[in-house]
Amino acid sequence: MNIAINEVAPRDGLQGEKRFVTTEDKVRFINQLSKMNFDRIEVTSFTSPKAIPALADAADVMASIQRNPRIIYSALIPNFRGAERAIEAGVDELNLVMSASETHNLTNLRMTREQSFGQIETICHLAASNGVAVNVSLSCAFGCPMEGEVLMNDIVTWVRRLAGLQVMGISLCDTTGMAFPNQVSELFSRCQDEEPNGVFTAHFHNTRGMGLTNILAAIDAGIRSFDTSLGGIGGCPYAPGATGNVSTEDVVHLLNCMGYDTGLKVDDLVQISRWLSPLLEYGVQSHITKAGPRWKSHPVPDDFEEIRSRAMGREIS
Amino acid sequence: MNIAINEVAPRDGLQGEKRFVTTEDKVRFINQLSKMNFDRIEVTSFTSPKAIPALADAADVMASIQRNPRIIYSALIPNFRGAERAIEAGVDELNLVMSASETHNLTNLRMTREQSFGQIETICHLAASNGVAVNVSLSCAFGCPMEGEVLMNDIVTWVRRLAGLQVMGISLCDTTGMAFPNQVSELFSRCQDEEPNGVFTAHFHNTRGMGLTNILAAIDAGIRSFDTSLGGIGGCPYAPGATGNVSTEDVVHLLNCMGYDTGLKVDDLVQISRWLSPLLEYGVQSHITKAGPRWKSHPVPDDFEEIRSRAMGREIS
Repeated sequence: MNIAINEVAPRDGLQGEKRFVTTEDKVRFINQLSKMNFDRIEVTSFTSPKAIPALADAADVMASIQRNPRIIYSALIPNFRGAERAIEAGVDELNLVMSASETHNLTNLRMTREQSFGQIETICHLAASNGVAVNVSLSCAFGCPMEGEVLMNDIVTWVRRLAGLQVMGISLCDTTGMAFPNQVSELFSRCQDEEPNGVFTAHFHNTRGMGLTNILAAIDAGIRSFDTSLGGIGGCPYAPGATGNVSTEDVVHLLNCMGYDTGLKVDDLVQISRWLSPLLEYGVQSHITKAGPRWKSHPVPDDFEEIRSRAMGREIS
Repeated sequence: MNIAINEVAPRDGLQGEKRFVTTEDKVRFINQLSKMNFDRIEVTSFTSPKAIPALADAADVMASIQRNPRIIYSALIPNFRGAERAIEAGVDELNLVMSASETHNLTNLRMTREQSFGQIETICHLAASNGVAVNVSLSCAFGCPMEGEVLMNDIVTWVRRLAGLQVMGISLCDTTGMAFPNQVSELFSRCQDEEPNGVFTAHFHNTRGMGLTNILAAIDAGIRSFDTSLGGIGGCPYAPGATGNVSTEDVVHLLNCMGYDTGLKVDDLVQISRWLSPLLEYGVQSHITKAGPRWKSHPVPDDFEEIRSRAMGREIS
């Protein structure tokens, strides 16, 4: 079974990074990623440089990367001005964002959800007239760090309304790692029942260690597209001490072990992850980059033959 | 559905700890754990103090803890002398150990697997004549860090032979975090088919981040007993940089979210984990102790009302 992996580290991973990663290093990073079989790379965010200084070089990065024609290069877009800039910069797909939680939408985007939805509708027209695809990421789909539970009925309603705008895809985002497996299966099942032609992506954070369990639950519910972040980098200011997105190499390692085809090789990913690590304040967080894949064997101790012959000697005596 | 949790931090967590945790602190730790609804607490290991200096005070710890009559107090036993000492110290259950991998058994226990099996048989007689229960932990049941794959047929054969010794239970141990979900389901299903009356426990390490996915796979395969370690402490010298056992609070948080009954409360576990952390060289590693449970909500920003009225103002104008 084929699973599509969207690499979001250049955007979701770097947006909160304290140490500024230079434009050259961002381009080097993305060019390395472009040699892999990702479905999509979220290159950057066209947002206010004041709000997210780490991604202030969005247009420069887009202009400098070498694109692989098999990969969709997307960018996160919080508002109309960002959409205009992204289209001008030549992104393949706009990843628009709104939150399922009114409190989170106001806090994060300074708009009510209705205002965000209205803006998404306007941007959809702009994108269509420029031949650019649109995906919408619905934040806090599995809970809000401030409001708590978000009703599944509300999520399904937003999914129906967004699907009505003819967007290419909808991502249900677990912005602060609140999702758990049976909730994941139920929500994705309900959304797919509501919109059988919808193309859904799952976006999980590993804040509470449940990221990989949620990915498997989503696969069981029929989801075949996932956002992941190399090295597990990224996070959310509303969950202090929290880890970031599910790690690309950890996800690919798990799925490869289980026999799913992601088109990606763990060793290649680990190599890029090791290259990336020293550029970041805290380095990468993934298990596989630290421990190596399960098939990497360790040598026996130097005195192994001695141990064995002593044991065998006891057998004979 | 009820899931039994066996707390192994005092043994598996502390055995490799560089900083010596004093006997008083070990006793304080175990006395706190004893107030929780654990099924079992693995108190210590009766092994050579030269091999594992961190647990050299095994008998003192056993003698000093306050026992909860609803909890089984077990200890890890690598050899006959250890079994004698543990029985004298009054443990409820001996947790004997052998490895499914010949190389790992030689390296770890300095015996062939046949020698280990013979010793387990002898210890079973000793335990029976003293009215002490026996569990056997089969290491490397999901792979060996030196040999690589371990054949499932071999595991099933060892399980059959161990069950023939009338042991109370058998734990299949993922000693270095090599297990993955479909392997877990298949192996436990086969073992249960082979020994329908067997009582099986799953023991996973989170070395490669797959610990929680493996727990859910084992539950799906009918397993209801798990070894976990508070704070996720522990590890294995053969997997450098690796994290330890699956974390008790992360496992309980996941299972409680999913509606399983572990009898344990996340907040109580986090409290003990926070108490334990400063006693250790690297502190505890669990997600939940760092990030808090999913139901812990964060306050809105101080200027939230201002943000909201500005947004609503745009609506009216």
